[in-house]
Amino acid sequence: MIRFNNDYNHGAHPRILEALAQTNTESYGGYGLDEWCRKASDEIKKYLDCPQAAIHYLLGGTQVNYTAIAASLRPYQSVLCADSGHINVHETGAVENAGHKIETLLGVDGKITAAQIKEAANSYRTSDIPEHITQPKMVYLSFPTEYGTLYSKAELETIHTVCREYQLYLFIDGARMGYGLGSEENDVTLRDLAALSDLFYIGGTKCGAMFGEALVITNLELQPHFRSYIKQNGAMLAKGWLLGLQFYTLFQDGLYFDIAKKAVDYAMQIRNAFQTKGIPAYIESPTNQQFVILTQEQIDQLSPKYVFEFEGKYDDFHSIVRFCTAWSTTQSEIDALTADIETLTI
Amino acid sequence: MIRFNNDYNHGAHPRILEALAQTNTESYGGYGLDEWCRKASDEIKKYLDCPQAAIHYLLGGTQVNYTAIAASLRPYQSVLCADSGHINVHETGAVENAGHKIETLLGVDGKITAAQIKEAANSYRTSDIPEHITQPKMVYLSFPTEYGTLYSKAELETIHTVCREYQLYLFIDGARMGYGLGSEENDVTLRDLAALSDLFYIGGTKCGAMFGEALVITNLELQPHFRSYIKQNGAMLAKGWLLGLQFYTLFQDGLYFDIAKKAVDYAMQIRNAFQTKGIPAYIESPTNQQFVILTQEQIDQLSPKYVFEFEGKYDDFHSIVRFCTAWSTTQSEIDALTADIETLTI
Amino acid sequence: MIRFNNDYNHGAHPRILEALAQTNTESYGGYGLDEWCRKASDEIKKYLDCPQAAIHYLLGGTQVNYTAIAASLRPYQSVLCADSGHINVHETGAVENAGHKIETLLGVDGKITAAQIKEAANSYRTSDIPEHITQPKMVYLSFPTEYGTLYSKAELETIHTVCREYQLYLFIDGARMGYGLGSEENDVTLRDLAALSDLFYIGGTKCGAMFGEALVITNLELQPHFRSYIKQNGAMLAKGWLLGLQFYTLFQDGLYFDIAKKAVDYAMQIRNAFQTKGIPAYIESPTNQQFVILTQEQIDQLSPKYVFEFEGKYDDFHSIVRFCTAWSTTQSEIDALTADIETLTI
Amino acid sequence: MIRFNNDYNHGAHPRILEALAQTNTESYGGYGLDEWCRKASDEIKKYLDCPQAAIHYLLGGTQVNYTAIAASLRPYQSVLCADSGHINVHETGAVENAGHKIETLLGVDGKITAAQIKEAANSYRTSDIPEHITQPKMVYLSFPTEYGTLYSKAELETIHTVCREYQLYLFIDGARMGYGLGSEENDVTLRDLAALSDLFYIGGTKCGAMFGEALVITNLELQPHFRSYIKQNGAMLAKGWLLGLQFYTLFQDGLYFDIAKKAVDYAMQIRNAFQTKGIPAYIESPTNQQFVILTQEQIDQLSPKYVFEFEGKYDDFHSIVRFCTAWSTTQSEIDALTADIETLTI
Repeated sequence: MIRFNNDYNHGAHPRILEALAQTNTESYGGYGLDEWCRKASDEIKKYLDCPQAAIHYLLGGTQVNYTAIAASLRPYQSVLCADSGHINVHETGAVENAGHKIETLLGVDGKITAAQIKEAANSYRTSDIPEHITQPKMVYLSFPTEYGTLYSKAELETIHTVCREYQLYLFIDGARMGYGLGSEENDVTLRDLAALSDLFYIGGTKCGAMFGEALVITNLELQPHFRSYIKQNGAMLAKGWLLGLQFYTLFQDGLYFDIAKKAVDYAMQIRNAFQTKGIPAYIESPTNQQFVILTQEQIDQLSPKYVFEFEGKYDDFHSIVRFCTAWSTTQSEIDALTADIETLTI
Repeated sequence: MIRFNNDYNHGAHPRILEALAQTNTESYGGYGLDEWCRKASDEIKKYLDCPQAAIHYLLGGTQVNYTAIAASLRPYQSVLCADSGHINVHETGAVENAGHKIETLLGVDGKITAAQIKEAANSYRTSDIPEHITQPKMVYLSFPTEYGTLYSKAELETIHTVCREYQLYLFIDGARMGYGLGSEENDVTLRDLAALSDLFYIGGTKCGAMFGEALVITNLELQPHFRSYIKQNGAMLAKGWLLGLQFYTLFQDGLYFDIAKKAVDYAMQIRNAFQTKGIPAYIESPTNQQFVILTQEQIDQLSPKYVFEFEGKYDDFHSIVRFCTAWSTTQSEIDALTADIETLTI
Repeated sequence: MIRFNNDYNHGAHPRILEALAQTNTESYGGYGLDEWCRKASDEIKKYLDCPQAAIHYLLGGTQVNYTAIAASLRPYQSVLCADSGHINVHETGAVENAGHKIETLLGVDGKITAAQIKEAANSYRTSDIPEHITQPKMVYLSFPTEYGTLYSKAELETIHTVCREYQLYLFIDGARMGYGLGSEENDVTLRDLAALSDLFYIGGTKCGAMFGEALVITNLELQPHFRSYIKQNGAMLAKGWLLGLQFYTLFQDGLYFDIAKKAVDYAMQIRNAFQTKGIPAYIESPTNQQFVILTQEQIDQLSPKYVFEFEGKYDDFHSIVRFCTAWSTTQSEIDALTADIETLTI
Repeated sequence: MIRFNNDYNHGAHPRILEALAQTNTESYGGYGLDEWCRKASDEIKKYLDCPQAAIHYLLGGTQVNYTAIAASLRPYQSVLCADSGHINVHETGAVENAGHKIETLLGVDGKITAAQIKEAANSYRTSDIPEHITQPKMVYLSFPTEYGTLYSKAELETIHTVCREYQLYLFIDGARMGYGLGSEENDVTLRDLAALSDLFYIGGTKCGAMFGEALVITNLELQPHFRSYIKQNGAMLAKGWLLGLQFYTLFQDGLYFDIAKKAVDYAMQIRNAFQTKGIPAYIESPTNQQFVILTQEQIDQLSPKYVFEFEGKYDDFHSIVRFCTAWSTTQSEIDALTADIETLTI
């Protein structure tokens, strides 16, 4: 079986494993206060143009999301988010468990707009009874979104401007950051994200690391005592250097960008194969996740050989399914799939 | 100025004040373990046909709502609610502050349906990855709703059936209970509510009491240690007999029902006056809240003499406003208003 | 039976009832934004010499305590408190339910010292791994304490100095404030409390009001959005003027001080009676709570006629019991009790 | 520098790294629902004699602790714990952040007794006002404790009996489990722990794994929906097989026990060296942590070559320091240290 079901079904890039093996007989200080975390942050900062950034290494996306939100908001404050946002639909109410309301905005292809954010923020600002409602204080975006779509630099700039106007923090979930940066359609850099957001993270788990996410906090207001939040939320790895070492390996010579770009190229081959075959996309995604609309017969034809994810019924005769590529995908896997797509019954 | 802006702008029914005065030189045990609370519960139970019910007296609606939800749900469980539900839009995220996600269903005139509830519950039950989403475990309804509308007995029975099928608790917010029971259109009794819900409350603050809500817990599962939740959430009045005494006064000879019914009759006079004048209702409400669509000119004509609540813009030329009657409304106030409605510019 | 078991077993001072009756046909705006709350705050401020103070009216002690703490602390911050502090032992973990750790200091007669506070704060400041422990950020005191004892002005000044040095908020629980201020031994004024603490409250429930506590926030840092916390924690009374009216009545001509002082005088008569009889105090209290050590025989002699509170076993032959006076206590009740104390078996 | 400062300063046992390398080109399903987690649980269960046990793999100690407590307790319930317990002093209030009070009992050498637990539980049971205090519902122990000491089987049985009598859950933190089981003084087996506790965990991070803890839930009451708690608390590793694979490697042929036992043997050599030299232990520990009382001169003599942990001042002339061995410690490191101990100035 070839897995296209997600982008976290393989261990780690071989160079990560090598790095772990090479340092295994060394000893280090704990809790992320080690030389590898420092070196990793130095490497990442080369891409940021933001010397004041604080970088922390956590273990997974849900953990980063609710820890960052818990650290940023007061109890009466809420976070604005697309209805399809990961924190709203895939994290078992972790943000609410941390005490905060998520105010959802209706997304289009997983994206929300500056105008929607402005309206929500303005609605609070102009309320007669603000104490009866939560105060929107943060905007949560994903780059790429749950549907693989991307915000353009212009869109992020407009959102950034609204956030400044209404004193909202902008938090960008980058669990699949590499696949966004590696897209042909993308015009956003890490430097842009550092300049336009207050905090964002660079996903490792889905982009070549064994595990781990690098949270970049650019807003000085949100930096103090962040390690207390990490510890309190069970997110402080005793052997923190394991995270630093992985991000150092991914960033010291651009490996992160290369392997993610390759995965996106593979995804485009899948997209083309479906298009050529006349099988419609559910959403046009320029990144590593491809959502297509298949008949049950087509699903049955692909299922014996490939694992892919059922996303929901499209209509009585069609389903939406997702094919994911990853840093671990190979050209031969893609060749097999595209050949089989060509033979599907229409 | 005559206030129609809400139903909590006067102190208390004169008989409540009398009762407070008559007992003021007596001394009582604290925290709701007194004779008046017992007597009040005995009186209320005469309307319930539910000997197992536990009745607790709390101080206000938001407090009852989040305390009841915190006591009923485990951290991974959520509550289903109309998008317009009070807990979702007017309580500063109190439910989320208690750790629970509110899953909203799109209401029609403030009401949700058994089919919507079933779909949400079924979506969890049939999920491949239930641990990534919250488990709907409670349904929150208001009777009457935020828009003054009512659930029929048949509707509540269908909702009850779905709740049993999916093991959901049914919680009914009765902050304006009296005005629902007192409506001509209503076919639901307290007995029905006790039979069809797991817990519900009978609002005092808006229905003749100085303050206080009577929470009726019929489900034995939810009764143990409820007083611990009351205390923990700052909802245990030291002089608990003040609450018992008020509810005893309201229920021992049906005062609660009489004064609320009269208020609804007054509301119907307002409704008729607007209808006669050809001024449209925003929502057809059979209870004490009337929502109408006025021009700015009409608002300006009524504003010097009456206080009423602005609810939002209807279109560029009209606004939605609310007129509320209450136990304290008088016929002369109604006569004045209806006469002035007659003279409005159309 | 004559109740000396606590100071909240009677309704309200007659003048409070009168005020409620006189305003009962008036209508007011809701949620504490009314003229009576404004007038009450004006009266209270005459005693404070702190024009910047924000005053809010809440319903009871536990509610004020956890709401104030939730509003003041970030998730990683804790509150320092005597082991016998009300928030630590009588509030069902309300502070922890709000997410905060209470770090206890061993009290002497219910009091803690500036030196203890300094040590705890310094222990955090000098910690190698501050992110593994909570940051003490608030000191919680009661005036009077749970044992009826008082902090002197000099003690409060020293504590205040340490709090400033370590940037700790000083929060003073004044549920029994009147009985502290009314003690012969007391040298502290409301003006001092306003100057020396960041927030404190003036108890109404136990000191003549029907219910209610006036929270005074002097620190500008803690004032913004406090009403959001009140609402979120179910502590915002719809008919807020009921609270304002009571505090206006208590403060506009010093009634609050008079009735509390009288109660303390009565307590001193009880203290003297026990002393004269040779019955030892458990703690020397100069306020309205008197803790004495009785034999079972003595308890049996007083029990048929008086209600008083069992506090715990002193040894195999003695118990600690509490006698409380209140604004509602009468000289004839005191005469009866002191006469009966005289006849106790030694 | 040779690190004796803690037991988590090296990566992983070489066989763990090999296993990770060998499976790195394989693909697996996510979130712990994979074959390696199943196989690991099968291996662990061979030591338990408890077929009903549910085993979950989480990432670190703090995370396991607060997740398990959040999943077990209702909001009004508290956990009993030694004052020195890890959850009380080293986890930044994570348990309180999850809403629960920790009721501390004064430990002796880090241990608490069945009698203390019984007294606390009984105090709640016999309280007149249980709703004003939290209900102790769980006992938290560490095996070994923070001071390296062990509970005997007889002690655990007595505690178990009290827990059954008072319906308390017994939760055992086994972050250093291997070093407890590997002690000469130990008479407890994993089978005993499974029989006597409701849930406990087997530490991997400190005992040979790269990271990870295996939580064993034997009480059927606590098993349902536990995965929801794991996800909600950010503790669900996307690539869950990485945890299963490590525990499989540690347990399939007893590696876990062997490497921990060796570490304890090394610790005993350190203990003997200090004893021989006449340097007193602060606490007599039969496991991998050794606490000794050194002069500043002795500290200065050892510091250039060894890293060890300062625990606190003993008196004006002495400090308490900790030497930790681990699975990664070597005989040559021990030889060096013991030789240098011999040369210390007395």
